[in-house]
Parts: sequence; structure tokens; C-alpha cells
Amino acid sequence: MNERKKSGIIIIGDEVLSGKTLDTNSNFISKQLLERGVDVREISIIQDNEQEIITKVISFSNKYDFVFTTGGIGPTHDDITCEAISKAFKKKVVQSKIAKKLLEKHYGIENLTRSRLKMTYFPKGYKLIENPVSIAPGFIIKNVFVFPGVPKILEVMFFEFIDKLLKKKVYPQKVISTSLAESFIAEFISNIQKKNSNVKIGSYPYFKNQSFGVSLVIKSENQKKLEEVSKEIFKYLLTKNGDPKFF
Amino acid sequence: MNERKKSGIIIIGDEVLSGKTLDTNSNFISKQLLERGVDVREISIIQDNEQEIITKVISFSNKYDFVFTTGGIGPTHDDITCEAISKAFKKKVVQSKIAKKLLEKHYGIENLTRSRLKMTYFPKGYKLIENPVSIAPGFIIKNVFVFPGVPKILEVMFFEFIDKLLKKKVYPQKVISTSLAESFIAEFISNIQKKNSNVKIGSYPYFKNQSFGVSLVIKSENQKKLEEVSKEIFKYLLTKNGDPKFF
Repeated sequence: MNERKKSGIIIIGDEVLSGKTLDTNSNFISKQLLERGVDVREISIIQDNEQEIITKVISFSNKYDFVFTTGGIGPTHDDITCEAISKAFKKKVVQSKIAKKLLEKHYGIENLTRSRLKMTYFPKGYKLIENPVSIAPGFIIKNVFVFPGVPKILEVMFFEFIDKLLKKKVYPQKVISTSLAESFIAEFISNIQKKNSNVKIGSYPYFKNQSFGVSLVIKSENQKKLEEVSKEIFKYLLTKNGDPKFF
Repeated sequence: MNERKKSGIIIIGDEVLSGKTLDTNSNFISKQLLERGVDVREISIIQDNEQEIITKVISFSNKYDFVFTTGGIGPTHDDITCEAISKAFKKKVVQSKIAKKLLEKHYGIENLTRSRLKMTYFPKGYKLIENPVSIAPGFIIKNVFVFPGVPKILEVMFFEFIDKLLKKKVYPQKVISTSLAESFIAEFISNIQKKNSNVKIGSYPYFKNQSFGVSLVIKSENQKKLEEVSKEIFKYLLTKNGDPKFF
């Protein structure tokens, strides 16, 4: 399991911290990465504050193989992600001729205001990430991938770029649901986990339409072990009238 | 503005990092705190991993007035929040007679399995947080407030307890929407922000039903300034045919 890449996600935005906006970007990115064999180890939601961004980007860039950021790359005064990341890596901010041409074409030269021009600057050493929706590109610097915060735009950009970076990789897992209470099956699950260190069993209670239940997610890169352990759990739940179902 | 309390939220759960579960708990807590005059400065989503929890709890407890955690206090082997927090504060884990009685009554003594009994232990010095839904209590230790991860249960528990801790406080704000592009109004907003340091202007583009627009959130504890600045912005948007609306 040690070969899997590790990543961290940084969500930049006061509007998420105030509860005004529900962050769905980290969930979207996590799912996409998992399908490509990359684990998300940590998600951090921070203020539109230069020092906070600098500190977090340096820390995540050192800790993880990949870092993804969303938010703060638009044209307004509170869009400070690019400058903060440039400072984090001690890079000058330079203008991209390609980005400038794209925005000129999109808005018309006469409408390329100073604010909009802001979106043509990047930390030296950048690579652009294409934006087919609202044109202003994201960028890559070192192991940090910088995206806008608007989900519709982020999602399109992410799909455009991710397949060039990472191939889809199926990480084998089985999901079993049961109507038994988590506390009822806990000891059994705990024991089977102890006996099988190369399998990871997660236990997730749910509460839906007035009924409780548990989803068990069983993962392993060892397909045989995965099958064995899943079957053992399924059988146990069956003998306890737990109405188990594979998903 | 310096009197406002600061808080941090720690979401504990592999299921959020894998994208399986969309975290809505931090959004719920953020909104509730904001209404009571407490700012959320940082949200951190971390693994069900003892060392990660210890490190994050110590760091947040030192940095913020209040820390809220969700997840990992159920009966299963991957519920390790209580033990990790006890270690973070170098506290012994002790059994609560009250919690034990509550669970005995709820499940019946004969059904109080070892797994369920796990939910009656807390770090020494704890205070309980009542749980009217599934009975097993949350707890408070130092400035850390520990809740379960299931949203329905967390939400009921939070409402039960928060009004004892914090009074609702209205933090004055105005919200103006406009159909103009963010880049078009950015320079104006940037200038008016520079001139009014005791007002905080946030600019949030939205994308809905194929149309773009911007929501401006203007905040200040100085009601007069808030009114003045909001009116000035509204007038400007009106002269630019930006179809401004107050919310």
C-alpha cells in the first residue's frame, strides 16, 4: 500500500468559513483522486489571508506528493492566492503572454481592465491549467495545482487536466450494508481487523428515513484477502440476521 | 472587531477524505457560530489517526478560543477521538457513571456490550454534552467540544448545548447582488475597501441557471459605516446598470 501517492487539499475562502458557502470542491477532488490511486490525507479550509495561505502551502507542499488549492484566483481585491503562493515559493510574479492573448480574445482588448489583467500573472516557473469555461487559467507550480473556487468551473478544468497527470486506477474495495447497530457488530469487526492488517475496514453508521444502519467499506490491494475478509463479514452478518447487502 | 471570539473546527473521518461522505457538519457549525458572534478561522479534515488527532487538537486548542470536533466517538475500533484527545491533554480516561446509567437505561443492562461501554469513558476533567437522539454523550475538555459525526445527531446536540454557552449575537451585514461581472466591479470595490478599513467587503461570484453574477457581503460592527458603504456600492452598481438588489 506504500506506493499510493498522498495529497492535501487547501480550500481558500472566507465564504466557506462563515458558512455562507458549502464547500463541495474538496469532496469532488477527493473522489476523482481516489479513482486515480491518490489518497487525500488532509483538507484544510483557510481564510483569504496571505500569511495563512503561505504557511499552509509550504507545509502541505513538503508533506504531500500533490497539493490542490481552490479559490482566490479571480480579479478582485480579495483574490490573493497567486501572490501568496509566489511568496511561499519565493518566486517572482510574471505575466503569461498566452493567458493575456486568451483573455484579450475573450473579453476584447478594450475590456481587458486592470482587474482582469491580474488573472494573466503567475509565479515564475508556472504551467497553465486550461479553463474552457471562463478562460482565465489555473496554474501548476512545483507540486501545487491551483484552481478557481466556482465549482462548475473547477470541475470542468479538473477533468480537462487530470487525465494528463494521472491514470485512473481501480483501488479494490467492497461495501457491505447491514441493518444491525454499529455497537452490536463492533467487537466482531474489531477482531477481524486485528487479524488482517493488509485489509482496511471502515465502519460508517447512516441514518436515513428514520432507520439506522451501518455501511462497512473494506479495502485492500490484495484482491484475494479482500474477497476472503468481505465474505467472512457477510456471513457473520447473515447469521446475526443483519440483512447484509453487497454494493 | 477584536473582541470577537475565534474558533477552529476539526472534522475527523477517513470517509470524508475519501469523498464517500460530503462534510456538512463544518458548514452547520460555522453558520451557528457566526450567528453567535464567533468567527471560524480554520477547518481541518483529518484521518482517523491517533497522532494526527493529537497534533491537530493541541495546535487548535492553543490557537483558538473554541475548538469543535466531529466524528470518531462511536463504539467501533476506528472511533479513537476520545483516547487521542485524552493523550493530547495528558489526561487519564475515566468512566462516567452518568453516561453509564443513561446507556444502561437506553440499551438495557444485558445489551451494554464492551463496545457500547466504550462510549461511557471520557478524559478526566470532562463535562458531558447531552445527546437526546442516540443517548451516548459528547464531551467538553478544556476549550474543546467533542461531537459525533452523524449530522442529524450532531445538529440536535449542538442546539441543545450552544445556547448555554453563547448568546445569539447579530453581526451586522448587508448583502448586495449584481448581474455585473466580478472583474468589471473589482477596481471600484478594491478602492472602497481601501478607504474603509473598519468595513469588510467580500466578493463572491455565483453561477446559477447559466447566468453569472456577484454577491457582495459587507460587514462591520459600526452600523453607520456599514449603511454608508453599502449605499455607496449600491449607487455605483445602479449607475452601471448592474441591477443591484439588497438581500
